[in-house]
Amino acid sequence: MTLNPIISTMGRRLRLAVIGGGPGSFIGAMHRQAARLDNRYEIVAGVLSSNPERAKKAGIEIGLKSERSYTNVFEMLKTESARDDGADVIAIMTPNDSHYAYAVAALDNGFDVICDKPMTNTLENAEKLHQKVLDSGLVFCLTHNYTGYPMTRQAKAMVMDNQIGTIRLIQVEYVQGGNADENDPDPSEGELPWRYDPAKGGPSLVMGDIGTHAHNLVRFITGLEVREVAAEVGNIVPDRQVHDYAGALLRMENGARGNFWVTQAAAGVENCLRIRVSGTKGSLEWMQEFPQTLTFKPLNAPSQIRTLNGPGSLPLSTRSCRIVAGHPEGFHEGFANIYSDAAEAIAARRTGKKADPLALYFPNSLDGLLGVRFVHSVIESSQADGKWVKC
Amino acid sequence: MTLNPIISTMGRRLRLAVIGGGPGSFIGAMHRQAARLDNRYEIVAGVLSSNPERAKKAGIEIGLKSERSYTNVFEMLKTESARDDGADVIAIMTPNDSHYAYAVAALDNGFDVICDKPMTNTLENAEKLHQKVLDSGLVFCLTHNYTGYPMTRQAKAMVMDNQIGTIRLIQVEYVQGGNADENDPDPSEGELPWRYDPAKGGPSLVMGDIGTHAHNLVRFITGLEVREVAAEVGNIVPDRQVHDYAGALLRMENGARGNFWVTQAAAGVENCLRIRVSGTKGSLEWMQEFPQTLTFKPLNAPSQIRTLNGPGSLPLSTRSCRIVAGHPEGFHEGFANIYSDAAEAIAARRTGKKADPLALYFPNSLDGLLGVRFVHSVIESSQADGKWVKC
Amino acid sequence: MTLNPIISTMGRRLRLAVIGGGPGSFIGAMHRQAARLDNRYEIVAGVLSSNPERAKKAGIEIGLKSERSYTNVFEMLKTESARDDGADVIAIMTPNDSHYAYAVAALDNGFDVICDKPMTNTLENAEKLHQKVLDSGLVFCLTHNYTGYPMTRQAKAMVMDNQIGTIRLIQVEYVQGGNADENDPDPSEGELPWRYDPAKGGPSLVMGDIGTHAHNLVRFITGLEVREVAAEVGNIVPDRQVHDYAGALLRMENGARGNFWVTQAAAGVENCLRIRVSGTKGSLEWMQEFPQTLTFKPLNAPSQIRTLNGPGSLPLSTRSCRIVAGHPEGFHEGFANIYSDAAEAIAARRTGKKADPLALYFPNSLDGLLGVRFVHSVIESSQADGKWVKC
Amino acid sequence: MTLNPIISTMGRRLRLAVIGGGPGSFIGAMHRQAARLDNRYEIVAGVLSSNPERAKKAGIEIGLKSERSYTNVFEMLKTESARDDGADVIAIMTPNDSHYAYAVAALDNGFDVICDKPMTNTLENAEKLHQKVLDSGLVFCLTHNYTGYPMTRQAKAMVMDNQIGTIRLIQVEYVQGGNADENDPDPSEGELPWRYDPAKGGPSLVMGDIGTHAHNLVRFITGLEVREVAAEVGNIVPDRQVHDYAGALLRMENGARGNFWVTQAAAGVENCLRIRVSGTKGSLEWMQEFPQTLTFKPLNAPSQIRTLNGPGSLPLSTRSCRIVAGHPEGFHEGFANIYSDAAEAIAARRTGKKADPLALYFPNSLDGLLGVRFVHSVIESSQADGKWVKC
Repeated sequence: MTLNPIISTMGRRLRLAVIGGGPGSFIGAMHRQAARLDNRYEIVAGVLSSNPERAKKAGIEIGLKSERSYTNVFEMLKTESARDDGADVIAIMTPNDSHYAYAVAALDNGFDVICDKPMTNTLENAEKLHQKVLDSGLVFCLTHNYTGYPMTRQAKAMVMDNQIGTIRLIQVEYVQGGNADENDPDPSEGELPWRYDPAKGGPSLVMGDIGTHAHNLVRFITGLEVREVAAEVGNIVPDRQVHDYAGALLRMENGARGNFWVTQAAAGVENCLRIRVSGTKGSLEWMQEFPQTLTFKPLNAPSQIRTLNGPGSLPLSTRSCRIVAGHPEGFHEGFANIYSDAAEAIAARRTGKKADPLALYFPNSLDGLLGVRFVHSVIESSQADGKWVKC
Repeated sequence: MTLNPIISTMGRRLRLAVIGGGPGSFIGAMHRQAARLDNRYEIVAGVLSSNPERAKKAGIEIGLKSERSYTNVFEMLKTESARDDGADVIAIMTPNDSHYAYAVAALDNGFDVICDKPMTNTLENAEKLHQKVLDSGLVFCLTHNYTGYPMTRQAKAMVMDNQIGTIRLIQVEYVQGGNADENDPDPSEGELPWRYDPAKGGPSLVMGDIGTHAHNLVRFITGLEVREVAAEVGNIVPDRQVHDYAGALLRMENGARGNFWVTQAAAGVENCLRIRVSGTKGSLEWMQEFPQTLTFKPLNAPSQIRTLNGPGSLPLSTRSCRIVAGHPEGFHEGFANIYSDAAEAIAARRTGKKADPLALYFPNSLDGLLGVRFVHSVIESSQADGKWVKC
Repeated sequence: MTLNPIISTMGRRLRLAVIGGGPGSFIGAMHRQAARLDNRYEIVAGVLSSNPERAKKAGIEIGLKSERSYTNVFEMLKTESARDDGADVIAIMTPNDSHYAYAVAALDNGFDVICDKPMTNTLENAEKLHQKVLDSGLVFCLTHNYTGYPMTRQAKAMVMDNQIGTIRLIQVEYVQGGNADENDPDPSEGELPWRYDPAKGGPSLVMGDIGTHAHNLVRFITGLEVREVAAEVGNIVPDRQVHDYAGALLRMENGARGNFWVTQAAAGVENCLRIRVSGTKGSLEWMQEFPQTLTFKPLNAPSQIRTLNGPGSLPLSTRSCRIVAGHPEGFHEGFANIYSDAAEAIAARRTGKKADPLALYFPNSLDGLLGVRFVHSVIESSQADGKWVKC
Repeated sequence: MTLNPIISTMGRRLRLAVIGGGPGSFIGAMHRQAARLDNRYEIVAGVLSSNPERAKKAGIEIGLKSERSYTNVFEMLKTESARDDGADVIAIMTPNDSHYAYAVAALDNGFDVICDKPMTNTLENAEKLHQKVLDSGLVFCLTHNYTGYPMTRQAKAMVMDNQIGTIRLIQVEYVQGGNADENDPDPSEGELPWRYDPAKGGPSLVMGDIGTHAHNLVRFITGLEVREVAAEVGNIVPDRQVHDYAGALLRMENGARGNFWVTQAAAGVENCLRIRVSGTKGSLEWMQEFPQTLTFKPLNAPSQIRTLNGPGSLPLSTRSCRIVAGHPEGFHEGFANIYSDAAEAIAARRTGKKADPLALYFPNSLDGLLGVRFVHSVIESSQADGKWVKC
């Protein structure tokens, strides 16, 4: 726990410009709160909507100066890159189909980038964007925010510390009920209607929305890549045009086996992202709805309930907490951890100093590429009668 | 709640003879306690071990008269069927490979049968045994005991009462850690070594031991049959000769989709049988480690924790409780419910009277046949590179 | 885990006669099931109701021979004590006001006694009965059944093993909702109406019914006596003639402090008996509604969830389980543990052999006396404006 | 969910000056993060330490301009009140004994005030400060932050909506283990050593630290005042100079009864603030360690688990969430709710506009006064042998 200082290596907060996240966007407010929590960013510019009038108004509403509440993304990138006090970082929180173009343009203008997931809709764009990030030397952070929770970081740290042994079995599920109502299979009105249009939302709603989170969390905690998948993906609600469930069996690179289940059509369920990892020395279990605890079941010893900053906490976890044990942190703090770690990396890059190595576990463009590739492998296996497909 | 009377239609308790369950058998003591709990059976005879000396001694130890502590199954069946006060029912709790022969012989001698699961090791025997039961008109009860818990019965009753709506999604897992220790992949010593010998334990240890329970529980609660399966089954612990995990995707007869995951190699886990069923009106969730509650998550209304004999309990559930709300029942009572329901059916058959219809949900030979068939379908799909296979 | 043999030291099961527990009595069925579970008792005689006709009928219904289904308690005691195959033990499960007379008569006739709680309604009778038990040398077992749960025994064993250190703080609550409905403050109809008549139910309904359980559980787990109490007891539901809540602060004999809270008027609550004990080395927490687990929170180490027969189980606990880890036992098994332990003590007394020392933790007449005394101390402090009163 | 705008009625963020919260202060970082989360405050000035050198350095470290990182509180108040762009609000997060002087000076200089709890150490100061707040017409917000959690607000809203009926029974406990280690009864080194000095920390460490929170939460949720208390307070760890536990029975103004238990000496426990409220229509239960849920047990209907923004959420609760159901908020968001509500009230006062009535449930100086009075009543009863004392 610290004073939550501005970035000392910079001598100031990073200047952030946002793309998207205007009125009605839950995730936009979340990005801004995450940026603000630790005082490492100052939001200085933005294009908050694709509608110019709404964009201007919303930017002012969130506290931007009028001239920096832009109405065109490419104009903002050009103008801000020319200003002495211009933005350092661009955060993208628009519909999925625009991530690629905005991220490429931001990188081309020399900005570090924070981008919502999934990285792109197509595998081709994912590969190109990842290559561009590598070539640019800039920081690219993908907001797979569930890896920012202190207890998923504790899980990862325990795996890295060999407290779990060799990983053998993985179960991951992400079950929601938001799309369970059969009376409204493809809402064209209401919140985020673009998600129900494959041209904007991507080839698989459920995989892009939550499947990539589940896949990323498996890779984050275990440190293992998925090598092969046997899967089915489709819609369980009749007359729906998009996918609302996917199931898969996984073969990991080390021979471990996994089970994967995601759906947004489980009536009455809220946001049950749950992972269990079993190794030769014990099992770990974490659920997003109660993220403040991590269950550890060691081989031949009593089960343990690990808590934020509680006994046995490892550095990767404790540095992700702002509070003493017994006081839960939530979704916002996990999201802010991703932002604050990216800030550390960005400041290090800009100043030529070395970042705290523990800050460098935020998701990046490789994670984004592998996530998009996993979506496509699941679809491929499903179309091939469930046969095993390489990832 | 009643006086737990002896069977009124019989005017006496049923006379039970047991096969197996001698020293060191956890399940043998369980069968006997289940038979005793509600006072509907009197244990009058048995062959407690395949070793004649141990059989004789153990029978006396559990309270049998010396002449009815037999050393040979077929002799017991013959003798008891000839006695005026001979056994009414035979309960079989021997290694899996002998279920078939003993069950056939018991039926041939006119006994009703209670048999441990899996019903048989081979599909051929399962089909033959099921046909014989149909032909005999005798009662055959298979101890898939998890269907005896009041809250799995409450789940089934809520499904039948259309409180869940049309079933769409099913998740079932049965995760244990008993076979997680890599230092001992195939214990030839210790408890139940026959389970590690496919000739005795059957073609798939994990599927026979616990996979059939998971499969049966899905069918019991949802009332739906599995139509197709895409699966993998194998051993995750190196150098093990038997299966220790299986994963499968399920297509149910009504188009619902399911996810199935069973393993005995998850270090530190005890006995996590967990099922979630989602329908158009809500989701149900039950876990065997806390069997006294059932979570019901209705669409667009607060989640509910249902309890034994608590508000909203349906008759199939309340008749399976012996206690007022707030006092948990456990594994023994669930097991005893199977025995007591079988007693009701057996007494009805013997007296020509009508059984309580709510007593007739105990697992029977059709359940046994479908369980064995499911084991074989999982193996078949696994051998066919994960392709979908009919059940 | 054993064959659950009949008592080997006796060469047969104990013969049990019951007083009370007829039609409509939940606790009567419970006593009989508890006696039956481990096959250590055979129910041979009884007076099931104070109404002769109902008594006769109910006794036959539970399987007694007609001549041993008695209609008068004293006649039964006399007749059974004269028979060669007469009862060994008397179990009393009648309204509280009759415990004293029946227990005294049973002891006078040379029977060992199992008696429901509270032992008596008056302190004078409790003292006299306890003295009579001491003088008789007979076994007296009081069914404070919550001390029979494997995990309360694990808690006691951990305290005795000094794993908790010096006890400093105790919280115990027993919260029920059965008497919460204000429309029916003193049900004269329905189940157990005698409980609402102080002449039969005793001076404090809530203290007799559940307060004595909470008090007993504190003493059982901690091994400490309550030295002083500051309390209030009364009725929170208007116009009720009996007590429905009591709160107290406790000073234990070693200086530890405790908090005590019991009520039957908490709407919607089922049977929340919950205890927390903190010592210098850690804290224990147990809840009756989930009795299969015990939480252990060691000082400066992660919290642990202990389970039935799970890692770290101590002998007093494991000998109280019939099953492998992960399979919950419930209320019946805890109750049966009290009965089976009493059987061990009774058989030892009758044969002159030594009982298993771990069987001797069942509640006895001293526990009964201290429970009744605690009820009276709570009332006394409440009447003295909350001042501290000696126990 | 909104854009989290700056205060529209002000056209800008409120300018905040902080007193205290320098290096090593957990609560200081918390106050600043709470202020920042919703973008309703801008931290413009501060005195971060009583040590001038550390104060100057720490202020700059958190981003203050050098000239507004003050070293003297009274100088800051004077200077800031004179500036055109001076602070609007003063937030006090210093040791308890200085709250009074700083709060009075801030009010005297025309500032609205946000102050940490307990409000003062002495009852006399509490009464004087409360009167001064009333006289000034300024906003005074006391950070009893547990009333900022969405689910404690849901509980309050359900009580106000008469969903619980007439309140009859209350149980509140606040159990921590931070002071359980007997080897260190009165740490003069380490974090917050002033808490162990009654001159600075107040007459009762445990009551000031956490007892006032528990008392405040009871009043907040039930809307009822404590009328009388029978209590004991003291130290359970030998040789400790301060109080580490307190127990009390409560009589509420409407005749309801309550039980109160607080300690910081329960080894291994983290931060178990737990409240249960029973009314004629049902019971509510909330625990701070899992603040994202609220259990509602209605009379004669199944128990419900209420969640943040889940079905049945009332406006006072939903306006306190920033996120869709299933994503937990934590301690920071609850704290921020207090800050953001105070911002609404302050902006309304300054602009003469009407505040959102739902924003006016933050704790104020009356709550502070009643909290201090409760501390003194507990001590008084404890000194009077546990007798009932008026509050």
